Amino acid sequence: MKEYIEKHRERFLDELYSLLRIPSVSSLEENRPDMLKCAERLKTLLLEAGADTAEVYPTEGHPVVFGEKTVSPEAATVLVYGHYDVQPVDPVELWKSDPFEPEIRDGAIYARGANDDKGQLFMHLKAFEYMVREAGLRHNVKFIFEGEEEIGSPSLAPWAASHKDLLAADIILVSDTTMISETVPSINCGMRGLSYVEVKVTGPDKDLHSGHYGGAVANPINILCDMISSLIDRDGHITVKGFYDDVAELSAEDRAKLARAPFDLEEYKNFLKIKEVRGEKGYTTLERTGIRPCLDVNGIWGGYTGEGAKTVLPSEAHAKISMRLVPNQDSDTITRLFEEHFKSIAPDCVTVEVKPCHGGNGFLIPISSEAYQAASRAMADVYGIEPVPSRGGGSIPILADLQRILGIDPLLMGFGLERDTIHSPNESFLLRQLFRGMEAISLFYKYYRN
Amino acid sequence: MKEYIEKHRERFLDELYSLLRIPSVSSLEENRPDMLKCAERLKTLLLEAGADTAEVYPTEGHPVVFGEKTVSPEAATVLVYGHYDVQPVDPVELWKSDPFEPEIRDGAIYARGANDDKGQLFMHLKAFEYMVREAGLRHNVKFIFEGEEEIGSPSLAPWAASHKDLLAADIILVSDTTMISETVPSINCGMRGLSYVEVKVTGPDKDLHSGHYGGAVANPINILCDMISSLIDRDGHITVKGFYDDVAELSAEDRAKLARAPFDLEEYKNFLKIKEVRGEKGYTTLERTGIRPCLDVNGIWGGYTGEGAKTVLPSEAHAKISMRLVPNQDSDTITRLFEEHFKSIAPDCVTVEVKPCHGGNGFLIPISSEAYQAASRAMADVYGIEPVPSRGGGSIPILADLQRILGIDPLLMGFGLERDTIHSPNESFLLRQLFRGMEAISLFYKYYRN
Repeated sequence: MKEYIEKHRERFLDELYSLLRIPSVSSLEENRPDMLKCAERLKTLLLEAGADTAEVYPTEGHPVVFGEKTVSPEAATVLVYGHYDVQPVDPVELWKSDPFEPEIRDGAIYARGANDDKGQLFMHLKAFEYMVREAGLRHNVKFIFEGEEEIGSPSLAPWAASHKDLLAADIILVSDTTMISETVPSINCGMRGLSYVEVKVTGPDKDLHSGHYGGAVANPINILCDMISSLIDRDGHITVKGFYDDVAELSAEDRAKLARAPFDLEEYKNFLKIKEVRGEKGYTTLERTGIRPCLDVNGIWGGYTGEGAKTVLPSEAHAKISMRLVPNQDSDTITRLFEEHFKSIAPDCVTVEVKPCHGGNGFLIPISSEAYQAASRAMADVYGIEPVPSRGGGSIPILADLQRILGIDPLLMGFGLERDTIHSPNESFLLRQLFRGMEAISLFYKYYRN
Repeated sequence: MKEYIEKHRERFLDELYSLLRIPSVSSLEENRPDMLKCAERLKTLLLEAGADTAEVYPTEGHPVVFGEKTVSPEAATVLVYGHYDVQPVDPVELWKSDPFEPEIRDGAIYARGANDDKGQLFMHLKAFEYMVREAGLRHNVKFIFEGEEEIGSPSLAPWAASHKDLLAADIILVSDTTMISETVPSINCGMRGLSYVEVKVTGPDKDLHSGHYGGAVANPINILCDMISSLIDRDGHITVKGFYDDVAELSAEDRAKLARAPFDLEEYKNFLKIKEVRGEKGYTTLERTGIRPCLDVNGIWGGYTGEGAKTVLPSEAHAKISMRLVPNQDSDTITRLFEEHFKSIAPDCVTVEVKPCHGGNGFLIPISSEAYQAASRAMADVYGIEPVPSRGGGSIPILADLQRILGIDPLLMGFGLERDTIHSPNESFLLRQLFRGMEAISLFYKYYRN
């Protein structure tokens, strides 16, 4: 496919840019029209790439795009999943270029969504186009693109449940993850689940003067800090009652296998500019993000946050708290356990609300499967080295749902790199990874059930 | 003075409104022009009320207004202190009317500054006008109005130090505090000091995806919560090393005297809509705000605080933390102790910055003084009951500074009420308190050294 890429390189970039320029932030109401615009653009790109049909389906949330090409009822069917929504761009002042005006610097495209997931889903469009036009496609291929992955995919699971026949396939192929490094390609064979909640602690019913009341009336920020602090103990264990009940401990053998993935702690710390890592006692850094659950405050706010000093004892304090879950932990159960626990530790002087935001379960895929093996060969061809099976720390809750609803395993061929800083300012995607990804996907079609 | 108030009521309100309409928020750069406008307006009001001279003095910060009327070199001199700057209005959406467009509802003026301190300083202007025009003023009166009280008065102390002769007086008269209630008038005989700092906790040098790094990299919000939580122990004691070293414990007798102030805990809790109070073990609610220091988080922020869910492991977390101090505790010393302590408890996985914001010492004034006795008689005349000496929980750090620089005791005749919710949305000031305040101040002139 290399020659084809070389020949169409400028058109490929133009097409990708047309997606990146649409500010499809699914969590912001103001971007609602952009979601539809982005969905329509994908429909056009699908048809241009060679799909027989492509449609934009409205949902209660943002639209779903479905397209397909059927070559034969007997052929194996690949269902490609991707998402066209992106994360918010805050803090926007830290971006070196406009997040919605792609710019190439040092061989990488800088834009919100350059990697996650517009760049990665685009690789599938172009590999498909190549197979159709040049290499003789021998699979039925279906595409499902959603606009709500970053907000927990509320609409796709019900939509999939009512379109099971349309989505019937042998494998769900996904590029929405990272590999260990360019020299150590890897394939995700498991992802963590997620439970994301928003909490509110209310003290007095109005903001008070901290001089008149300070010392006598509970300050909801101080209380919230106490409560959050108590959620993780000195050993890095989460204290939510029942939290670890369903966590499957890995055998020493399995842990040894995972430990084969090359990892340089000093390099990791240098990249993040931190003096020390921190996590659960008894586990390595890779294990802490791969096979162990965790709890993070993703946002906190309360009181006066403007410039200068305001001596207020505020009425309310808020936080967004998420827990990454490992396979076997059920997201809804964990959300319920968290809510019960968090309310149980609230002192009498405040009231506490817990609002579930979104979540999903983790999952595992067998390394022995045909699809994994085909992906492994494809990546070995491109990178010149056999990829390492890895466990992703992130979550794509919808994939566990699709696996359950459709009965199809997901396969995660991700081409992102740590350096891409997805979800952060200056998200980027290396051009060479974009093009290698296209090539590897076209080779997947070569090796998978052919 | 009652008749005079009745006759000029509408003009009084118009004049006060002209001050309240100026958004003189000292902490916001955008309001800088309003500060000068407000100072100029006060100069005009001083001259109109009967001052011989009035001037706006520039400082490195916001201007100082000074005006005076001299009746005789032998007469006692009263120095009236007030501040024309106000607190920010956030969260502005909770205001029922525009904070800078005064509105009367249920007998109270609603506006930012209606009480603190434009409303209260205005009482002094009108009592002075009455004394000049109708009652035969027999004191020299000086007025000093600053525009930086809410940000720690950085300019007034140096200005006062270089204008000692201009400010020479027998007493500093101030209305910038509350009384216990309308049926239990009180005079503040002591105020708490303040140390206000802003802290920043930095983890990784960029925002990270919480799925990829969560569990392995320290989250600065979680760490900040741990650190804040550790600042107060289970008994409500502040754990900053050396914090209590200079706190003078009151004798059982003094505590018994203070306990005579009427206080209804159920009424207090009902007013604040809280189930329980919370504070230092071994002290009553009034003692906790009156004679004991405390520590409050006045603001906290970090990570994603917009709508929806963003799975970010943020680079930074911030908080504004203030400590109220009691007489004998030195604000600068406490700020230094806090900084040392806070840095000492930071784990290796983060870096911590502590920025002192503002502060000042507390002070005490003798009940036996001529000025206190005159104020007591004046308030007894107006309220029909002898006022109770009380300890204010708030801080007016500049008064301790002026006491030290000028060698003059401050006397705090405050007419605010708890219901006024100063520093909060819907700040207000009861019209009857505004007018009673004017009357009581005019009676102070009658009883003080006459």
